[in-house]
Amino acid sequence: MSREADFIQSLRALATHPAARGLVDDCAVLEIGSETLVLTHDIMVEGTHYLAGSDMAEVAWKLVAVNLSDLAAKGAQPVGVLLGQMLGDDDARFAQGLAEVLAAYDVPLLGGDTVSGTGPRSHGITAIGRATHTPVPSRSGAQVGDAVYVTGTLGAAMLGFEALRDGTGADHAAYSRPQPLLAEGRALSAHVSAMMDVSDGLLLDAFRMADASAVSIGINSAEVPVAESARALDCMRWGDDYQLLFTLPPDVESPVPATRIGSVEPRGFAPLFLDGEPLLNPEGLGYTHK
Amino acid sequence: MSREADFIQSLRALATHPAARGLVDDCAVLEIGSETLVLTHDIMVEGTHYLAGSDMAEVAWKLVAVNLSDLAAKGAQPVGVLLGQMLGDDDARFAQGLAEVLAAYDVPLLGGDTVSGTGPRSHGITAIGRATHTPVPSRSGAQVGDAVYVTGTLGAAMLGFEALRDGTGADHAAYSRPQPLLAEGRALSAHVSAMMDVSDGLLLDAFRMADASAVSIGINSAEVPVAESARALDCMRWGDDYQLLFTLPPDVESPVPATRIGSVEPRGFAPLFLDGEPLLNPEGLGYTHK
Repeated sequence: MSREADFIQSLRALATHPAARGLVDDCAVLEIGSETLVLTHDIMVEGTHYLAGSDMAEVAWKLVAVNLSDLAAKGAQPVGVLLGQMLGDDDARFAQGLAEVLAAYDVPLLGGDTVSGTGPRSHGITAIGRATHTPVPSRSGAQVGDAVYVTGTLGAAMLGFEALRDGTGADHAAYSRPQPLLAEGRALSAHVSAMMDVSDGLLLDAFRMADASAVSIGINSAEVPVAESARALDCMRWGDDYQLLFTLPPDVESPVPATRIGSVEPRGFAPLFLDGEPLLNPEGLGYTHK
Repeated sequence: MSREADFIQSLRALATHPAARGLVDDCAVLEIGSETLVLTHDIMVEGTHYLAGSDMAEVAWKLVAVNLSDLAAKGAQPVGVLLGQMLGDDDARFAQGLAEVLAAYDVPLLGGDTVSGTGPRSHGITAIGRATHTPVPSRSGAQVGDAVYVTGTLGAAMLGFEALRDGTGADHAAYSRPQPLLAEGRALSAHVSAMMDVSDGLLLDAFRMADASAVSIGINSAEVPVAESARALDCMRWGDDYQLLFTLPPDVESPVPATRIGSVEPRGFAPLFLDGEPLLNPEGLGYTHK
């Protein structure tokens, strides 16, 4: 972990360009001529991000969807994706899932690279989007007095994962085929003070937003829409829901369906307060992708 | 191999956007507002593209350099890169090499993703460039009657690889730290009818250019500048030199130092003729990255 932190620190030292707002867990935002581009790159590794033996169509879907979700949080319209693919046994299924997700969101495949390798496979997507509103929303813009909102329901991906793991036959699409909220992100982008997608769990991502914005965020757990009320804390800690977490000035209504779950406060003892309890450390709040 | 070909075929079927000119071995060219962007993504895998135990600073250099070489062949000015990095033992050396190559070519790191994984590591770079001339040069524009040129000397990377492999102590920079010809590519882009970088060997890449252009290319081996004349054929088959291969109309002089090595002829019996001998099949002509 500290080796990883060291490396990311050295990358941050290299990423001095103003476009590199949030290396390595946020998008790059780049002015090109009269346009503003949003670029993101996410990798999935067998054994880390998906289990060996997974349906590769679902791996492909999710790989593209998580990158499009990053664009959604920036209010960006996808322009296309590049694929980096380590070839393997289920490439036909992978191609099928890729075709499905690209068609579902009307996103072209622009190019990429294929390589063969031994051992666990990795798959990368670079997604390119065009900002529909500038300044492009970031996680660092939350202002004291803003209200905190989240779209949809948290924990649905967790239940999907459990259904898949336990072979219950229950629907697992929320986990396997997440839906990037591109239209919602575009509708929100002109109004929000801060926005990000909930990829690693509501609590961890809210912690990060508070930290990036140098404020505290207070969340009222009773307000948080969860997929299973008996396991509300699990639902708030589980990632993979790809809902949008955002803040709005107090006099602004959300232009999309969303639930108000808390408020932005002056930076206090901790970045995050859950029902008034300070949460000091991101460890254990959610899922940290390694 | 046929599984790989099937997958690439299914990717090509998806890549119907006009930007996806050459999936999966060429750049995407994308009109964005008043600008034309060039995008490329290349991966290096431990054990396939570099040996376990390699100096990771050199792996990082080469990874960036090969992507910048793709931009060079399009006459594009780099805007930045995104890194997809599987973390491992030598990340500090990797970061050092990354810093060196980005500084050498004044290219910013814009973002990316880091993941941990087990087994052989993979590393991806997405490079984004801005075209300096449109139409952007492609490998498919060679015209009958054009002259065929190559920059620099071929086989230097081969000799560097052998020096490194055999521990002779001889200079291996041509293999380990290739120099993308960005300035040369920009100078050429307004003049060439076709251009590509020599990544997989002169013969294989010339074969591909002829095929893409629906012409034949005749190369006169005595004219080809090679690093070791006793092994001229090896030098023409070895990849990794990252020189520029291009065609010019007969009345146009090359604006950069380059050697005329042949000519473009009507499509004949084979895409490529070496000293008049037809070369029908790309297998064995050069290095095919798997």
